[in-house]
Amino acid sequence: MHMTFTVAVAGASGYAGGETLRLLAGHPELTVGAVTAHSNAGTLLGAHHPHLRSLAHRELLPTAVEHLLGHDVVVLALPHGASGAIAAQLPDDVLVVDLGADHRLVDPAAWEEFYGSEHAGTWTYGLPELLRVSTVDSRVEYTKQRELLASTRRIAVPGCNVTAVTLGLQPGVAAGLLSTDDLVTVLAVGYSGAGKSLKTHLLASEALGSAQPYAVGGTHRHIPEIVQNLQVAGADDVTISFTPVLVPMSRGILATATARLAGGAEATTLEQLRSAWSDAYEGEPFVELLPEGQWPTTAMTAGSNTALVQVALDRRAGRVVTVTSIDNLVKGTAGGAVQSINTALGLPQVLGLTTEGVAP
Amino acid sequence: MHMTFTVAVAGASGYAGGETLRLLAGHPELTVGAVTAHSNAGTLLGAHHPHLRSLAHRELLPTAVEHLLGHDVVVLALPHGASGAIAAQLPDDVLVVDLGADHRLVDPAAWEEFYGSEHAGTWTYGLPELLRVSTVDSRVEYTKQRELLASTRRIAVPGCNVTAVTLGLQPGVAAGLLSTDDLVTVLAVGYSGAGKSLKTHLLASEALGSAQPYAVGGTHRHIPEIVQNLQVAGADDVTISFTPVLVPMSRGILATATARLAGGAEATTLEQLRSAWSDAYEGEPFVELLPEGQWPTTAMTAGSNTALVQVALDRRAGRVVTVTSIDNLVKGTAGGAVQSINTALGLPQVLGLTTEGVAP
Amino acid sequence: MHMTFTVAVAGASGYAGGETLRLLAGHPELTVGAVTAHSNAGTLLGAHHPHLRSLAHRELLPTAVEHLLGHDVVVLALPHGASGAIAAQLPDDVLVVDLGADHRLVDPAAWEEFYGSEHAGTWTYGLPELLRVSTVDSRVEYTKQRELLASTRRIAVPGCNVTAVTLGLQPGVAAGLLSTDDLVTVLAVGYSGAGKSLKTHLLASEALGSAQPYAVGGTHRHIPEIVQNLQVAGADDVTISFTPVLVPMSRGILATATARLAGGAEATTLEQLRSAWSDAYEGEPFVELLPEGQWPTTAMTAGSNTALVQVALDRRAGRVVTVTSIDNLVKGTAGGAVQSINTALGLPQVLGLTTEGVAP
Amino acid sequence: MHMTFTVAVAGASGYAGGETLRLLAGHPELTVGAVTAHSNAGTLLGAHHPHLRSLAHRELLPTAVEHLLGHDVVVLALPHGASGAIAAQLPDDVLVVDLGADHRLVDPAAWEEFYGSEHAGTWTYGLPELLRVSTVDSRVEYTKQRELLASTRRIAVPGCNVTAVTLGLQPGVAAGLLSTDDLVTVLAVGYSGAGKSLKTHLLASEALGSAQPYAVGGTHRHIPEIVQNLQVAGADDVTISFTPVLVPMSRGILATATARLAGGAEATTLEQLRSAWSDAYEGEPFVELLPEGQWPTTAMTAGSNTALVQVALDRRAGRVVTVTSIDNLVKGTAGGAVQSINTALGLPQVLGLTTEGVAP
Repeated sequence: MHMTFTVAVAGASGYAGGETLRLLAGHPELTVGAVTAHSNAGTLLGAHHPHLRSLAHRELLPTAVEHLLGHDVVVLALPHGASGAIAAQLPDDVLVVDLGADHRLVDPAAWEEFYGSEHAGTWTYGLPELLRVSTVDSRVEYTKQRELLASTRRIAVPGCNVTAVTLGLQPGVAAGLLSTDDLVTVLAVGYSGAGKSLKTHLLASEALGSAQPYAVGGTHRHIPEIVQNLQVAGADDVTISFTPVLVPMSRGILATATARLAGGAEATTLEQLRSAWSDAYEGEPFVELLPEGQWPTTAMTAGSNTALVQVALDRRAGRVVTVTSIDNLVKGTAGGAVQSINTALGLPQVLGLTTEGVAP
Repeated sequence: MHMTFTVAVAGASGYAGGETLRLLAGHPELTVGAVTAHSNAGTLLGAHHPHLRSLAHRELLPTAVEHLLGHDVVVLALPHGASGAIAAQLPDDVLVVDLGADHRLVDPAAWEEFYGSEHAGTWTYGLPELLRVSTVDSRVEYTKQRELLASTRRIAVPGCNVTAVTLGLQPGVAAGLLSTDDLVTVLAVGYSGAGKSLKTHLLASEALGSAQPYAVGGTHRHIPEIVQNLQVAGADDVTISFTPVLVPMSRGILATATARLAGGAEATTLEQLRSAWSDAYEGEPFVELLPEGQWPTTAMTAGSNTALVQVALDRRAGRVVTVTSIDNLVKGTAGGAVQSINTALGLPQVLGLTTEGVAP
Repeated sequence: MHMTFTVAVAGASGYAGGETLRLLAGHPELTVGAVTAHSNAGTLLGAHHPHLRSLAHRELLPTAVEHLLGHDVVVLALPHGASGAIAAQLPDDVLVVDLGADHRLVDPAAWEEFYGSEHAGTWTYGLPELLRVSTVDSRVEYTKQRELLASTRRIAVPGCNVTAVTLGLQPGVAAGLLSTDDLVTVLAVGYSGAGKSLKTHLLASEALGSAQPYAVGGTHRHIPEIVQNLQVAGADDVTISFTPVLVPMSRGILATATARLAGGAEATTLEQLRSAWSDAYEGEPFVELLPEGQWPTTAMTAGSNTALVQVALDRRAGRVVTVTSIDNLVKGTAGGAVQSINTALGLPQVLGLTTEGVAP
Repeated sequence: MHMTFTVAVAGASGYAGGETLRLLAGHPELTVGAVTAHSNAGTLLGAHHPHLRSLAHRELLPTAVEHLLGHDVVVLALPHGASGAIAAQLPDDVLVVDLGADHRLVDPAAWEEFYGSEHAGTWTYGLPELLRVSTVDSRVEYTKQRELLASTRRIAVPGCNVTAVTLGLQPGVAAGLLSTDDLVTVLAVGYSGAGKSLKTHLLASEALGSAQPYAVGGTHRHIPEIVQNLQVAGADDVTISFTPVLVPMSRGILATATARLAGGAEATTLEQLRSAWSDAYEGEPFVELLPEGQWPTTAMTAGSNTALVQVALDRRAGRVVTVTSIDNLVKGTAGGAVQSINTALGLPQVLGLTTEGVAP
């Protein structure tokens, strides 16, 4: 007899919850259990996610612990601040995965500064490819976040923009090739990243034919999370300018992230840069440095758990320019979650995920 | 030991070939063999389909029989007129699948009128859900095209627009509820349906923010194929107005197809109509009548092999209105091909295909 | 001294009101007076229409008669049902223009059936090019709606979809070439046609990459208005199937409208059809039959007051197929209003309007 | 009798030529004369720009001096390298306007490095709002490029990306508030900026739903032109990272340009920054600093000659972030050209141009 793990999804009527269900529907070892919602409780999933045919008949239960208990895995796709209380009532041996921001940051002060509420605590960060650089007895040790995920029962899934920027820059940071004291990032972001909330600037009429920046000037909540990741990857101080721009696509993030070469590394060649990036992601099924001369586009990664990275050296500007493409709902949210769940459950991390994008 | 079938894809650098490879990459029983191209021979797949990461390193061989021989299945994604000559040189026991139009039509005269070249012959039509209505000893018999596919080694994959219109109308035709003497269809079509050819009207600048009709007034080559299908489904004469409109999306067909109620069926109720459609597709994994009140959108079927249908009865207009959504590259081309291949090889027809759309 | 007319706009924060202001800002004889809104009263226009730089500093007053009095023209861009009460309080010599539906229909029963409220009355219909065919002493007389607009002080601006379908079909109806007993129309519609209301299906994430039908099966409120227009153009009974499809563009309507040739006109040639259409629009500055072989696209008319029409004869299908393109916010709403205002004020009808589309 | 100036447009079948014609069609003092093309000579304008109804019947003549002679103004919308030879054959008193790059750069070495051909010479730069900062007798003098345009007969219209970045950054440079030694710019660019050339990556299927970077790493030809402009605005050395990203819109540029505060200006407040930007553009009809808290989008400037700028101070990142929106075909090309032509001919610079965008 074949045992599978049951997964409950709280907040199933939103985009993050829906994408999680899309991946679970095709997963050979994970089975969809209870699906819950807040205001949409009592309606059918098919009313909110008609693209999920195999689950369209499922009824949304109220988001309450009683409906989440009894599953091997509970995925929380809830508004900021809502996951802590629920998680506290779930047994320690249940794998709880938070797609929200509540448990990502280690520093309570950073949380409070950017989110303006009390810190809910810190869970194991769900970015398997995150480089961890530490110095033990003056010896530099390189590991990956994957190791910490293998044994955890509490996972904080990274922010989608954070995943794109971190994967783009971290190899150069870990290798000591990039200075992190003046990073500049600008992201082209699809509208699903803004969620399903009913706001005028998210209407199709406002989006079509337009590019809209938001949270300009250092206010975006993903900033401290990027800083945290790059410090884990070996950076001391991290100073970053971060500007997201909504562009007329439903999915995808194209992150342009630039950094100056580190002091003493001014003579670094493109070949040396490429080696650092390819070494960092060697063997990784979902993160890839593209061949020289080919640049990522969001179409290349749409619907897949793939992150594509390219790096250029602009000697005249004195900057390394990296471009990273991911699907914000897959590698940036639900796919990253499934990858971490696989790891935490001792399953092959690639189960239920694809590297093939849906293009054109 | 686990045996899989090898599949060669000729014309692999185009959209139809690329989508076939995307599905093969995730198929548990089919393995990608040779990939060939004409002018792109000698280049890597990754240059044409960078979204197909697992195949990016594959080199495109010249499209020649020598490279196609030795596979269990050969998929031909070639321009009209090119598949006949190659197929003739392939052994009878090789499963040959033509994504082009060459072998779809039974009537050579219809072929010559719409394609202006010599008829290449007729292969088994690759639409498993096609209703076949025949009268044997004055007894009406209902079967499906699936039965004919089980034993064939030559498959002609339907046109994408044809699949959408046929699936939308055939239940009412087979049930004798619809008159086929004045069908009117208008389709919203994504740009990938026009292929990768370099034409000014296919440029993004021309497409974005615009809706462009083409082949208006009865000239579209898919017309005789629709007529043929509806006759197989029990229609006598079929008269159809067909107008495709390119709209700013890369994939998807939304087909609005209307018909008058058949003589004697004027009193038909919506419930009776819904019964005819739901009966016709009962048990079908990839074709579904939506719940009353919910209408198909192309987002619901993007990336999946699903066709979603809805039907309305407009008594004032005296017409039944059906709307059908498919992904032109999946159910409309490569997915339909894989479904037929599965059937012809004796595999479960759903292998390597999904019913879950990629939305939003 | 140069006298201009002052125009107040009620409901100025919506799309129809905004487009009216955009055209008024460039009009040599009309001057923007009071701008009013309901819930947005007290805010600046620049917060709602930042693209209207010359008016960004204007404050929105509450929509109340006291603010509308004292203008030569009052444009009402209000929800259905709101314009009647306000108009009743405005002097008879003020030119009042209703962009809403309240005063379009002549038949109170038709109004009540489709709008479910009491009929507000009938104003002069604001489609200058509408053909009026009447029989006087067994002599058929042809006039245009323009004549009725010259002296009116109450104008009901047509619905945008209605304008597109009417302009596409009426020449053939007036010439007795088309049968109106089985019209079938399908429209590709941009999202601004759905207004600024906050609904999930109008979100960019839902719209991008998708085509969404709505009001399918004879329920759309524009149907009785089309019937009314075609009867004015000479039709007896009119039976029409009408299906609008939202496609990913912010503006534009591409209307495909088909009709059978009238009894006795089966031998009509394409040339005869083209003559009927070109005769009907000869001398019209804003409605044009395209050269044979060229089809309208919405990009061709974006931002302009132009309606482009093309006609084809599909003998096999026994149908005449017309395709009409307009900008729903210009010729379909605000531009049509300005054209009618010009006429009613005795100004050249083209003032402040352009025939040049903004493309690509 | 009313005299107008005649304008010939060479290269009229492309997007830049077409947009020039769109603006000329609405210009009260400029009249369209000869329209010429290379491979499209002999065809009608309506075949290439069907949106330009008033000019659709015009025939394209071959691009030869004989057809350009006899006009007051000649606009050259030609490929790089083609304008010099033609201009040399035109009388000195004819106003010649080059929409291409040939005559923009002052430094032949910079031209040859980025364009790889011989320098054609330098014409008066057509950006009226360009700040010119010079030191005379140790006194800093501020003027604008407009002054130089008043008397010229040879105008080099700026690159579209250059216009956006220059207008965004120059006020802070001229005021000595910004350091120019590490500028980082990332632009979201519409597809019309890439022209009408038939390339696979410009196909709608490739563009829809995707964001595509190009010319990454310091290779874009607009870089030396930006450097030149900022030096005119008072910068010493200029070091700039420049990354353009094609996003799914037909028009528009949204330029995010960041700079560190200048040495000694670290204490600068946002209010001081805003003053510098508003002072620089005070009285300018086409360039505007948005109210605090409102950010430019490309929809706000679509179809208009307006450039909208916003500035933020990110103290944590130590950077000033500016975002600028323009329509690449209007203020970025044809509108900027008309504005400069107006100035050179002694007409009001705003004639034939609008500040109102076409939105939504």
